[in-house]
Amino acid sequence: MDKEKKIKPQLAGGFRDYGPEEAAVRGRMFDSIKRIFELFGFIPIETPGVEREEVLTGGDADFSKQIFRIAERNENDPLALRYDLTVPLARFVAQNQSKLPWPFKRYQIGGVWRAEQPQAGRYREFIQCDADIVGSSRVSADAEIIALAHETFSALGISKFLIRVNTRKILNGVAELAKFPPGKIPDVLRAIDKLDKRGWDAVERELEKLGGDVKLVKKVLDIRENNQKKALVSVRALLEDSWAATQGIDDLEKIADLLESLGVPAKSWKVDFSVARGFGYYTGMVFEIVLEDVPLIGSVGGGGRYDGLVNRFSSINAPAVGFSVGIDRLYKACEELGIIKSKQLSEALVLNFEPECETYCAEIVAGLRSAGVCAQLYLGNEESLKGQLSYAVKNNFNIVIIAGSDEKKRGAMQVRNLAERSQFEVSKDEAVRRISKTSLLKMSKFMK
Amino acid sequence: MDKEKKIKPQLAGGFRDYGPEEAAVRGRMFDSIKRIFELFGFIPIETPGVEREEVLTGGDADFSKQIFRIAERNENDPLALRYDLTVPLARFVAQNQSKLPWPFKRYQIGGVWRAEQPQAGRYREFIQCDADIVGSSRVSADAEIIALAHETFSALGISKFLIRVNTRKILNGVAELAKFPPGKIPDVLRAIDKLDKRGWDAVERELEKLGGDVKLVKKVLDIRENNQKKALVSVRALLEDSWAATQGIDDLEKIADLLESLGVPAKSWKVDFSVARGFGYYTGMVFEIVLEDVPLIGSVGGGGRYDGLVNRFSSINAPAVGFSVGIDRLYKACEELGIIKSKQLSEALVLNFEPECETYCAEIVAGLRSAGVCAQLYLGNEESLKGQLSYAVKNNFNIVIIAGSDEKKRGAMQVRNLAERSQFEVSKDEAVRRISKTSLLKMSKFMK
Repeated sequence: MDKEKKIKPQLAGGFRDYGPEEAAVRGRMFDSIKRIFELFGFIPIETPGVEREEVLTGGDADFSKQIFRIAERNENDPLALRYDLTVPLARFVAQNQSKLPWPFKRYQIGGVWRAEQPQAGRYREFIQCDADIVGSSRVSADAEIIALAHETFSALGISKFLIRVNTRKILNGVAELAKFPPGKIPDVLRAIDKLDKRGWDAVERELEKLGGDVKLVKKVLDIRENNQKKALVSVRALLEDSWAATQGIDDLEKIADLLESLGVPAKSWKVDFSVARGFGYYTGMVFEIVLEDVPLIGSVGGGGRYDGLVNRFSSINAPAVGFSVGIDRLYKACEELGIIKSKQLSEALVLNFEPECETYCAEIVAGLRSAGVCAQLYLGNEESLKGQLSYAVKNNFNIVIIAGSDEKKRGAMQVRNLAERSQFEVSKDEAVRRISKTSLLKMSKFMK
Repeated sequence: MDKEKKIKPQLAGGFRDYGPEEAAVRGRMFDSIKRIFELFGFIPIETPGVEREEVLTGGDADFSKQIFRIAERNENDPLALRYDLTVPLARFVAQNQSKLPWPFKRYQIGGVWRAEQPQAGRYREFIQCDADIVGSSRVSADAEIIALAHETFSALGISKFLIRVNTRKILNGVAELAKFPPGKIPDVLRAIDKLDKRGWDAVERELEKLGGDVKLVKKVLDIRENNQKKALVSVRALLEDSWAATQGIDDLEKIADLLESLGVPAKSWKVDFSVARGFGYYTGMVFEIVLEDVPLIGSVGGGGRYDGLVNRFSSINAPAVGFSVGIDRLYKACEELGIIKSKQLSEALVLNFEPECETYCAEIVAGLRSAGVCAQLYLGNEESLKGQLSYAVKNNFNIVIIAGSDEKKRGAMQVRNLAERSQFEVSKDEAVRRISKTSLLKMSKFMK
């Protein structure tokens, strides 16, 4: 009996595993996202999970509390885990600009870490899928990123999503015309951003504390039009005295035209003046994607223009715009929508119930695989044919191959279709020849 | 002028980036590895990069020095970055066994971290690609893992690799018969493992310090046969008094038969009694893969049987065998072998040199993409047709689409094949219709 002390098999608080069913679905999601990113001409890079703390925080000691720091090493130059992929991209660009195609359209899929208090449904590690264009200040780059978001979500099989688009230029213009103190503008944006979650009354209370013309803000946020161009005409009338806002409205009009040309349907996006996005680094267009059937889950992706971030590291001119998919929230949303289909992981199981036939069964497995069939040799503890058959049923195999000493003598095997309860015998060589033309499952339907 | 203090754009010591060319090749390698793992019936899981330190070290304080610990949080239950994917797998299995198919064949591709002294060519973060079978003590599971390694390297396009196979049972048998003190056996194995790198004289000197019959070890290591079965007959004669070694030889004989059945060519593997593998957790078969044309790079993958690891966490019976590809070393080796082909990242560039034609050009880009062509709209700073054409040449595009106001009027575009210096005009709608049947590049050859 095993009496030695066991280590508790437990996850770190706030971290999670993805079991085989979830991980298989997520794997397909990543593949689909990669395919669209590449179709749009984005190229991959990989940066490490660990960076110099100063790179991540920009020297902001407050920010250090939100990241995981590495213990005990490099006390003079401490290390930490990245909390997003955007700041490391800015570091990478500053370091390698002369070697990169320019504009530099890169994508990256990787883990990020945030030192949040563990709470239900909120994790400290998650995967981000980011695509960014660095080195272009053109409004068409903004439109390309929104079109990319549209195509990415379409390819994922999500039908009812809405891309809510705004620009920081309009928000800054509103704050300026409403005479909020310049130092309070980040707070004004943060308050406005909560409209969707908390409603106007809560936003109003917060804005009133910040000391500006709350009525102007309300007028802007009240603009609701089905036609996005009309919404822009209305907001232009309210904000024509602000140069920043006027610039922003010009941008959004151009974006509206380009989105139409790029094939983004009018129903998939709208102008929404309450969208601000959390990160401080945004300077222009901002957007987020919400799923209309699961609004409570919040945004499942978003992005925007951040023209100054690379300047944290370098004086090069590197205006940038990007987009990030929140795959964890998205997965949760897809679960709630019931659009997750679990994947058949293996088509065929080759039973293995007579030790003297094991090499023969191994030959069959190898033959099936070389014909492209995902096939497994039974490797469990059941020794009887009956026990191994139950295992095949329990684990949802389509096809079971039975090859004992009789079949071995004849150079043959039994192919059993579990769903149709049909079975036929076929010679080992013929099976492989035929399977390369059709699927094993089709063949079993045909030959019963 | 920008006078503010810049953050140094610098990687943490011992960490590295992969730029677009490398990352694109690595991405294809990961895809190929995943495809083979799934063909063999392995299913994915994702475990977090951060685990409880105790889980990783098994309570071994010495080991703590080799891992990156997280600072300042959970002082009673410290966290750290995983250093491999095998120990987290054991934790996951102990925690979830009742929910898993059994045997559990899982794969995982993910980053691991090791707190080594930074040195040239040695990094502190790298990606592992692991496939393991947990819950099967059958020798056929060992053979499946070796066959998987063979298929994985074949699919990666690497022709000259050698799988060197051994078992800890033989090594333990040799050490026992050679009367090394039982406490010194790990050191004996470590010494033998260095034969390949350091040669016999160095190994002999180390073994002599450990106080056993060095001659017996030499006799075993001197066995060299082209026929692997013959090698096993020779070693059996030397070690017949050891029960452990005899068991190991029986295993390897069975593995030899199964590898033949599984289609692993005789030239791709051999028995090598010097292979021990570093990790303490191996209990049976061990193997590693070397590339014959770049021997200095060391092993580019390996694995073995570890029947006791899950018992660190649980009393369940979970014998296991697994395999890991070292993608970083492998990439380096492929570079030295010159078999890395850089990928054409985008087929077509749509120029964008007349502002009033930008939405028309956007329509063309969208049309090309919907026909499956990887296409980009020019987003850079060059405004002239000539400047944009130079950009296309410099960045290796195959095809350039030119659509100015003349083409727009006619609903057409110019398709230029840069390599062949040919050009033709085609209507926008026809282009998309035709491209879905053939590739844009083929079309441009055909229509010149």
